[in-house]
Amino acid sequence: MKIYADNAATTPMSRTAIDAMTRCMEEQYGNPSSLYSLGQEAKEILERAREDVAGVIGAEPREIVFTSGGSEADNQALRSGAALGKRAGKMHIISTAFEHHAVLHTLKALEKEGFEGTLLPVHEDGLVRPEELEAAIRDDTCLVTIMFANNEIGTIQPIRELGAICRRRGVLFHTDAVQAMGHLPIDVNADNVDMLSASAHKFHGPKGVGFLYARKGVRLTNLIEGGAQERSKRAGTENVPAIVGMAAALKEAAANREKNAEHMRVLRDRLIAGLGEIPHAALNGDAVRRLPGNVNFCFEGIEGESLLLLLDDRGICASSGSACTSGSLDPSHVLLAIGRKHDVAHGSLRLTIAEDATEEEIDYMIRNVKEVVEYLRGFSPVWRDLMSGKSQFIL
Amino acid sequence: MKIYADNAATTPMSRTAIDAMTRCMEEQYGNPSSLYSLGQEAKEILERAREDVAGVIGAEPREIVFTSGGSEADNQALRSGAALGKRAGKMHIISTAFEHHAVLHTLKALEKEGFEGTLLPVHEDGLVRPEELEAAIRDDTCLVTIMFANNEIGTIQPIRELGAICRRRGVLFHTDAVQAMGHLPIDVNADNVDMLSASAHKFHGPKGVGFLYARKGVRLTNLIEGGAQERSKRAGTENVPAIVGMAAALKEAAANREKNAEHMRVLRDRLIAGLGEIPHAALNGDAVRRLPGNVNFCFEGIEGESLLLLLDDRGICASSGSACTSGSLDPSHVLLAIGRKHDVAHGSLRLTIAEDATEEEIDYMIRNVKEVVEYLRGFSPVWRDLMSGKSQFIL
Repeated sequence: MKIYADNAATTPMSRTAIDAMTRCMEEQYGNPSSLYSLGQEAKEILERAREDVAGVIGAEPREIVFTSGGSEADNQALRSGAALGKRAGKMHIISTAFEHHAVLHTLKALEKEGFEGTLLPVHEDGLVRPEELEAAIRDDTCLVTIMFANNEIGTIQPIRELGAICRRRGVLFHTDAVQAMGHLPIDVNADNVDMLSASAHKFHGPKGVGFLYARKGVRLTNLIEGGAQERSKRAGTENVPAIVGMAAALKEAAANREKNAEHMRVLRDRLIAGLGEIPHAALNGDAVRRLPGNVNFCFEGIEGESLLLLLDDRGICASSGSACTSGSLDPSHVLLAIGRKHDVAHGSLRLTIAEDATEEEIDYMIRNVKEVVEYLRGFSPVWRDLMSGKSQFIL
Repeated sequence: MKIYADNAATTPMSRTAIDAMTRCMEEQYGNPSSLYSLGQEAKEILERAREDVAGVIGAEPREIVFTSGGSEADNQALRSGAALGKRAGKMHIISTAFEHHAVLHTLKALEKEGFEGTLLPVHEDGLVRPEELEAAIRDDTCLVTIMFANNEIGTIQPIRELGAICRRRGVLFHTDAVQAMGHLPIDVNADNVDMLSASAHKFHGPKGVGFLYARKGVRLTNLIEGGAQERSKRAGTENVPAIVGMAAALKEAAANREKNAEHMRVLRDRLIAGLGEIPHAALNGDAVRRLPGNVNFCFEGIEGESLLLLLDDRGICASSGSACTSGSLDPSHVLLAIGRKHDVAHGSLRLTIAEDATEEEIDYMIRNVKEVVEYLRGFSPVWRDLMSGKSQFIL
């Protein structure tokens, strides 16, 4: 059996998205900035895609800037909020300890430029406490950036509440919705969001494209200077085929969202229950307030990497956390942020299932993870020490 | 007859590139940062694409950073050169008056941050004089950025000579090779280039992808912060399908370059000769040192925009200059830089022919441009004034 259970890292493109994109590459190759009909046709489908994307999140088309992906959108959002703050003499930015590195590293860069960052704790359940945001906001706070749903443990933040606090306090609110888009209901107005980032390849669209929503009146800073594309907010010939592919994928995801989410939640909970039977294992993040497809466990006494390789041998594509940090040997900053100890954080497993996952696949994963964890523990000196009482179990 | 003669704005993708990209979207959708085999397979084709791209320009694979296009690459190159300069207390940057806006606008942003820019003149032939670069270099010059070939008038700069001067003077040299890549021979070592930008959709590859070459030892500054992709120099999930499509297109372009260029130069010169018969018309830029497919004329007494629309009616896709600035009513900064007066610069026409252009197409374009120019002049008050002697011909 072959199971792709790493949909948080990237998703296979939907047939609809591939076809829309290929058609565009073949026939509508004009540059949208060109005057002649081929160019204007490209411009029209670009604007139709913008309407489609805006429609899904309750935005106006002019509030959507297409980018090369979620990281670029995050960078531009933070840089924009910071620039607006600087102009107003406000140099304080609030975020959380478990954001994606596209946010955390940009924040670090901004700190070098004189900004001050506060990272809110996320607690053991992987959730931010609104009262802690309220308490952290200062007179010189220019921007709050909190992810909609975490990419590793899938926990869904109380975005609407957090946004309401920001609005009341007159602070810009950005959310990295890369993992949430297409999977959760999002309405930028009801959710009190001023800026929002998304990436197409997380909802069965193409790689290399995403968007930044910026509420009318929020002046964006350019990350990429040059031509007058995207209302002069993002230079470079518009990636029309990918944008069209993204819009097709997002419309499809939005249309089927509730049905898919219901199906996935049932399977997710089955998977959580199954893996929960493994001794000295613990689910990471709240069991209910989490993405419909996200399962993330820590297993005591094993190395995540070996677990992944053995699961791969059995046809299961899984990860230990974010693909974006997989080059690193450090334990996940997300798991550390929710209070997991280093040793335990190393033994993590993230399974993010697809919309078309089946019960059979779930049971196959449960069976195989159980076997592999047991097998690895048989070799593990850490496990031996735990079993002999030489060291203490944490989980 | 339908003729796409705006290949400098964007090119239709080659069949090879579309197929390579589609195959990758369908089958190799893994995230290259993922440990399992599907991810590692994506990683392998990504690195093979990097080798292919590097091979074409005589670079090492590790010197190639994939970006979302030429504008991003230009921005990153300039920001990197500037950051290195700042660290060394060198805040002077040299460029030319007719660069692409991705360079000029980034330079303007850098000037606001304390850098000083010098724009070399480009003379009537559209060429930079090496001795003028030599004279402009100062002790505090940190970066020289001069485009390989101009996007509007197609003139090819003496890059090798310019690069040699920079090398001798110990100054970083960047070239925006967006228009040259795939069309001219480029060897980063022989050409004495330290950084180079390219964009796939200018050589029949996909939109939304390009690359930045940075010589080993040239430390890049991140434009997009986040994950550790691209040796931590460009965050964001790698756009593997587009990168694979780009590599396929570039290999194809490189393999057929000489044959294509020879064919195009003959047709280009036929087109130049034909349009040259129009009275009070002038070729913009040197007739010989120009891209094999580029033709750019000024016609006195007409508006470029009307010309384009009427040509579109006759099936000819043409432009008045850069697609990236077509939203603007200002005359082309490139034409002004080579000394064209405002009025004349407004009456410009750029025809950039394809590798598979035919003599028949060329003759069709000559005939139609002639007819349309004559037709438009019949309505033009400017032309009437010129003919009656009320104002003076410039061309």
